[in-house]
Amino acid sequence: VLKLKLYSFWRSSCSYRVRIALAYKGLAYEYVPVHLTRDGGEQHQPAFRALNPQGYVPFLVDGDFGLSQSLAILDYLEQRFPDPALEPRDAQARARMWAFCLAIAADIQPLQNTGPVTYLTQTLAHTEEQKAAWIRHWIARGLAALEAGAGAGPYVMGAAVTLADACLVPQWYNADRWQVDTVPFPKLAAIVARCRAHPAFAAASPERQPDAPAPA
Amino acid sequence: VLKLKLYSFWRSSCSYRVRIALAYKGLAYEYVPVHLTRDGGEQHQPAFRALNPQGYVPFLVDGDFGLSQSLAILDYLEQRFPDPALEPRDAQARARMWAFCLAIAADIQPLQNTGPVTYLTQTLAHTEEQKAAWIRHWIARGLAALEAGAGAGPYVMGAAVTLADACLVPQWYNADRWQVDTVPFPKLAAIVARCRAHPAFAAASPERQPDAPAPA
Repeated sequence: VLKLKLYSFWRSSCSYRVRIALAYKGLAYEYVPVHLTRDGGEQHQPAFRALNPQGYVPFLVDGDFGLSQSLAILDYLEQRFPDPALEPRDAQARARMWAFCLAIAADIQPLQNTGPVTYLTQTLAHTEEQKAAWIRHWIARGLAALEAGAGAGPYVMGAAVTLADACLVPQWYNADRWQVDTVPFPKLAAIVARCRAHPAFAAASPERQPDAPAPA
Repeated sequence: VLKLKLYSFWRSSCSYRVRIALAYKGLAYEYVPVHLTRDGGEQHQPAFRALNPQGYVPFLVDGDFGLSQSLAILDYLEQRFPDPALEPRDAQARARMWAFCLAIAADIQPLQNTGPVTYLTQTLAHTEEQKAAWIRHWIARGLAALEAGAGAGPYVMGAAVTLADACLVPQWYNADRWQVDTVPFPKLAAIVARCRAHPAFAAASPERQPDAPAPA
């Protein structure tokens, strides 16, 4: 019986993180698209707000349990479906993995999220170019710190794929989307390339989602 | 032997979260102040960047292990010093607790952090009033969603203090600091008042830290 349901938007990097974990763990789920820009944003409609008062995707439903926040969802999936693992067993390695995830989820992504950048252009009347410069600034600053702390690979935490990789690849997608110069981040680039070759990461990619626009 | 060391700034809400957990668990630690605005920010100096390439506080040192990111630190402390507990045992309750923490740590705090608001005033030449309006907007939006999802108390997750309370109280401190109208959030206000009466929360408060300025 299919019991997992994911409210997602194809281009949402936070949704993308969760899709990677679901695919890596081989979990089937119902994909419920929530269009973040059409009609002022479907995430603001009463039906979705009743589910998630924050009005954000992703939102996971597991039977009668609903959960917001991509990192909470990732950890919940790990506890519920531990095999194959996406968290290190060692406590210090696990803590460092979360620090990496949070450096993306708390320090980069929020600043390039739809809400803040819309505030920049609408409330503060900035140009699209100023908006893009803001986004590029925070992505580049964040990736520079992660590059400085990066190990030898092949994945963020070493030999095995973890949730850190599931956070890095979607952030890198946004870096590409906003034309951030990623040449200064060769270690991260190598990890991303390796991840992208993995079928789970490929299946979770934005352009492979049901709500992605057809190729031009 | 004193082995825990916390790099902290008295007014940093992320440092404040960790101080609450340390005090609640009764853990002694060495307090290392990092002044976030003096001399362009001590967190940007080479010695601190060598420790934490992100250049943020808090940063925890446990013996020869160093860890950044307040939520990663909170979870690490919970695994390392599980008693008294600050995380629910039930997997779903624990996941909801993390979702609450992340709604603050990923959706509110990053937008009122020193870096972004300095970008608003310096790079984008906004006024202090526009900066304050931006900060108030994101705090109010975030707290409104948390109020909508809040339970009956006495604490965020019900009967027991958890890491959700350790995230809420510092965010509320910032709401007060920026004069956010908190009248629309009576459930959260009641939880905060209850927490503030707890000795651990009181001991962790900004004005009680060694680097806090003397009262005027």
